[in-house]
Amino acid sequence: MLLVSSPDGTLDVRLSVESGEARYAVARFGRDVIAPSRLGLVLREGSLASGLVLDGHERRSADETWTTVWGESDTVRDRHEELAVALRQEASGRLLRVVFRVFDDGVGFRYEIPEQGGLTDLEITDERTQFAFVEDAAAWWIGAYQKNRYEYLYRRSPLSELGVVHTPLTLETEDGLCLSVHEAALTDFAAMTLVRTEGTTLKADLVPWAAGTKVKARAPVTSPWRTVQVADGPGGLITSRLILNLNEPCRLEDTSWIRPGKYVGIWWEMHLGKSTWGSGERHGATTANALRYLDFAARHGLDGVLVEGWNLGWDGDWYRDGSGFDFTAPHPDFDLEEVARHARDVGVSLIGHHETGADVANYERQMEDAFALCERLGIHAVKTGYVGNDPEVVGPDGGPGEWHHGQFMVRHYRRVVEEAARHRVMLDVHEPVKDTGIRRTWPNMMTREGARGQEYNAWSPDGGNPPEHETILPFTRGLAGPFDFTPGIFDLLFEEQRPENRVNTTIVKQLALYVVLYSPLQMAADLPESYEARPELFRFVEDVPTDWSETVVPHARIGDYVTIARRVRGGDDWWVGSVTDENGRVLEMPLGFLDGGRRYVARIWRDGPDADWNERPYDHEIEERLVDAGTVLTLRLAPGGGQAIRLTPAGADDVRRPEGGR
Amino acid sequence: MLLVSSPDGTLDVRLSVESGEARYAVARFGRDVIAPSRLGLVLREGSLASGLVLDGHERRSADETWTTVWGESDTVRDRHEELAVALRQEASGRLLRVVFRVFDDGVGFRYEIPEQGGLTDLEITDERTQFAFVEDAAAWWIGAYQKNRYEYLYRRSPLSELGVVHTPLTLETEDGLCLSVHEAALTDFAAMTLVRTEGTTLKADLVPWAAGTKVKARAPVTSPWRTVQVADGPGGLITSRLILNLNEPCRLEDTSWIRPGKYVGIWWEMHLGKSTWGSGERHGATTANALRYLDFAARHGLDGVLVEGWNLGWDGDWYRDGSGFDFTAPHPDFDLEEVARHARDVGVSLIGHHETGADVANYERQMEDAFALCERLGIHAVKTGYVGNDPEVVGPDGGPGEWHHGQFMVRHYRRVVEEAARHRVMLDVHEPVKDTGIRRTWPNMMTREGARGQEYNAWSPDGGNPPEHETILPFTRGLAGPFDFTPGIFDLLFEEQRPENRVNTTIVKQLALYVVLYSPLQMAADLPESYEARPELFRFVEDVPTDWSETVVPHARIGDYVTIARRVRGGDDWWVGSVTDENGRVLEMPLGFLDGGRRYVARIWRDGPDADWNERPYDHEIEERLVDAGTVLTLRLAPGGGQAIRLTPAGADDVRRPEGGR
Repeated sequence: MLLVSSPDGTLDVRLSVESGEARYAVARFGRDVIAPSRLGLVLREGSLASGLVLDGHERRSADETWTTVWGESDTVRDRHEELAVALRQEASGRLLRVVFRVFDDGVGFRYEIPEQGGLTDLEITDERTQFAFVEDAAAWWIGAYQKNRYEYLYRRSPLSELGVVHTPLTLETEDGLCLSVHEAALTDFAAMTLVRTEGTTLKADLVPWAAGTKVKARAPVTSPWRTVQVADGPGGLITSRLILNLNEPCRLEDTSWIRPGKYVGIWWEMHLGKSTWGSGERHGATTANALRYLDFAARHGLDGVLVEGWNLGWDGDWYRDGSGFDFTAPHPDFDLEEVARHARDVGVSLIGHHETGADVANYERQMEDAFALCERLGIHAVKTGYVGNDPEVVGPDGGPGEWHHGQFMVRHYRRVVEEAARHRVMLDVHEPVKDTGIRRTWPNMMTREGARGQEYNAWSPDGGNPPEHETILPFTRGLAGPFDFTPGIFDLLFEEQRPENRVNTTIVKQLALYVVLYSPLQMAADLPESYEARPELFRFVEDVPTDWSETVVPHARIGDYVTIARRVRGGDDWWVGSVTDENGRVLEMPLGFLDGGRRYVARIWRDGPDADWNERPYDHEIEERLVDAGTVLTLRLAPGGGQAIRLTPAGADDVRRPEGGR
Repeated sequence: MLLVSSPDGTLDVRLSVESGEARYAVARFGRDVIAPSRLGLVLREGSLASGLVLDGHERRSADETWTTVWGESDTVRDRHEELAVALRQEASGRLLRVVFRVFDDGVGFRYEIPEQGGLTDLEITDERTQFAFVEDAAAWWIGAYQKNRYEYLYRRSPLSELGVVHTPLTLETEDGLCLSVHEAALTDFAAMTLVRTEGTTLKADLVPWAAGTKVKARAPVTSPWRTVQVADGPGGLITSRLILNLNEPCRLEDTSWIRPGKYVGIWWEMHLGKSTWGSGERHGATTANALRYLDFAARHGLDGVLVEGWNLGWDGDWYRDGSGFDFTAPHPDFDLEEVARHARDVGVSLIGHHETGADVANYERQMEDAFALCERLGIHAVKTGYVGNDPEVVGPDGGPGEWHHGQFMVRHYRRVVEEAARHRVMLDVHEPVKDTGIRRTWPNMMTREGARGQEYNAWSPDGGNPPEHETILPFTRGLAGPFDFTPGIFDLLFEEQRPENRVNTTIVKQLALYVVLYSPLQMAADLPESYEARPELFRFVEDVPTDWSETVVPHARIGDYVTIARRVRGGDDWWVGSVTDENGRVLEMPLGFLDGGRRYVARIWRDGPDADWNERPYDHEIEERLVDAGTVLTLRLAPGGGQAIRLTPAGADDVRRPEGGR
């Protein structure tokens, strides 16, 4: 048995090879969290999961701190112990390596199939990795292999009742231990889903190609990292940077063109049914409308304007057949050159839009020209889209049938990232494969969807996102990486357009989401007129950053409430967002995250005394007070509500005394 | 229907009288927590629970801040809205008042039977109060009507499966709402237990007299306050002062003689079987032994020395028949005058001991003389005891049969408090009735037992207190008031005396308990030689205060872990205790409770890297570092372990820079 302990000794991994089978186990403070669990791959060319013997091992310690291009923190410490194990199959002589990295906050491991005689082009037909959890736990999950990809409400069930689920899978034991099972650095492999095989044991379930196999590869092959993050409480999952640490360093030499920011767009009006993506009287992407949004963004200091429906291909059933999309041909209503020129004139970035209708073949044919056009016009960000039922991605052979999260699409998404980078374009991918931290390597991979976003509030027949939705997202989807949720709807009821739908939050909760749900490209999703009607609330959206130096989590209870505080990158201001589910909350928040030696002005946007998402969602108050690191703020969140706070170091002329708050 | 809202609107109480029955309901943020629940009393003279009509009501607002003589905080804000309702029984014309006080952190209500014709001497045979909780919850409880009074391990079950339980009863809903049901100001009434009548509905169940009735009274009668505290998270229950606010102000004019402090005693050696309470070779309470303890206390700055077994009556089955106890006659081995003189000489307080064997009649006969003797000898604190199976209290008629928590004993305990106060004696009551906050009114009522304390580790055949015990106590027994748990055992294994028993914690956890489990009289429970063997750890016990200005709860998870930070009364030092159950924990603690403008030296006693309650309980480290309110400390608690910290403002000459810790 081989043992590797995390740097401070909190976590141990044990690796054993017995009766030809390799197993690992994970213990915390000496007590098993994951019981001995199988390792191994099955190839079409033969199994690499049985008949194994240990053929040597290496150890390595790492402790380095690296700088992010953007993100939730400016630096990340990567401190781990590594154990690389060589396994040999006695009968065939074939080699398989498993590399473990053990951090204090979790474990990652991956498979490597070295170059070796008799194994060049190969196919992986199954991965045997198990996660045999020692005890049952509450699990927050969305099902895999469903029509709408990742766009489902998270459900809570006992781990012991799961079926097949996506990752990140979030677990909380009776005892308060929180775990997240996910993967890191998925770049040329099938995505891993998890299937429960018995009791509380999960097994890796690789998403297949339409043709049935799981992974096609040429040796040497390196799998993504299988990851298990572990923390005492859900907040520790949010502040863990294990997934990023297991990705490769940045490949781009010049990242000066990569700029987080906020954007508005011709988008929500289509979701409300006020305008359309396709041609006609109500076509949203007209030159005039685009200029209006650009001027609005310029007036309010927002960075970008997204225009959807700007190109040819939207008329007809594009989500069933996306082959009509032309990524360089604007709709006649839309003078792309004129709009791009105006964007440059007013100093706002035009954000391109490439909806593919999941016809990847059609997109790949045009992709290079499309990004070249962006580059020529000064378009430095593109939102891509892959609307289409799963598994109906149109592959290179013209036929539908690939999954959004099979190897075929993983490769495609990766090609897009690289092509975009060549043309200095940042990406916001909708209907993506899940995030596994490749933003570290390709920091133009800014944000993505891959969850049920705000637009469901506009039209979903199930009543939209319930108030608890945004209290679950930071602990589930949010652990994968940035999420383009599109917060900031101010007209919560849109009774004119869709009287039967609404946003199920207070208006203050919409502000808090800018801090709670991290995205380096953050949308102000509502219509310009909704914002101009409420300038005192819009001020928060105008000013809130999208790039941070530090992130802390003062309150965390999955599905109930969460408070996140972040310090702006390169500055001293702190921003706080706190949100609750359908229940009101009174939460004490010591401001110990502030610099101990300074005083701050706290500007507080909070739910009014009678606010309630259902009955009085607009009721709010704005207050300013002087505080310091010793102040305790009482956050009173209305049912379905939230609170948003900006903390700015006080000027020397501000002689008020900080209030203790207790 | 009458409505009364808490000052900030978080809680509402609705009062209705329909079909002759009075009901109240409690809502939080507009959502019911307690559904309409019956109110009313049943008298032998007739029911006051049905046939009622509303006969008027009064409202009153209060907002005052009062100063504690000692406690967890120096001042307490009492801010509530009061609604007093007059009910009249139509048939009999009898009157019953119900007074509600609605705070932001909970609700209290009590019954008043005014003086009225035809009702002078009366008997209450039942209380109809219900608590109809709207949803099920996890409940932490001990059963009522058990042999060993309150001395049981707390159990966790669904509220919907409870039987008859003691209060405080602690509940936590699926959604994280925490509640404590208890009573305040129990001074001449039967204690209230709770019986589940159906589903999630509890009913007040008054502890009877041996003769069967519940309460004997003469109008006007005022019941104790029935209380429900409500908080988002268990920490808010600990910082709530609702129980104290519902007690009467201090009755003592001069409180200068009331002094919190720490004590050692001739006590643990008897529990270990090293010496005996009764006569013989191993008699513990000898003059020489008492002088040894006094000298030890003087040397280490401890305030008091308790001597148990000093008087006559210990030989024989005193716990079956306590009538032999003489509270003024020392055992021949024990020169009381000499010991008391030496105590005065070395400046240490002798603490008296009155074990009654639950023979209350015998004690009441001698009580006045006993306290007069204390006063003459300069003994300002007495530990009383009522060992005896429930219900075997010997009452005035000489026969056993009263419950420790029936009205008979409530009256007795109260008489002792008053008699002690007359002689300037502070009380530490073992085998008490539960605490309901009367320490506000009688601040010589310092601390009490009423739970399963440290001594069970010495001899309990069930293996002693499990590691989770002390992570439950602050959220259950601790909500009632101070608890003389007797922490600080340093010789955890006492293999010589009792090899089959042990203390199930690390040694550092024993330190942390001084902060976590509040008591104004706090014992250093182990033998002097155990402390002198470990001076670097004993230093914490020597220095930790027992009286506080502020209390905050950085981490709270019932039965899993808890961290409490307290600022010393009238000073600037903060003290932190953190304890965990059988699982190791890594907890982030921002020091935002510190004064924002200062730097502090943190002296940290923590579990060593390999510590474990079971295998390496003595492994520990002591560290000093400079911190400020902006520092985040990472508390690494071993399985069954803890951490203890003292934070002292740094001197002007301390030029080290505070470490951020993140």
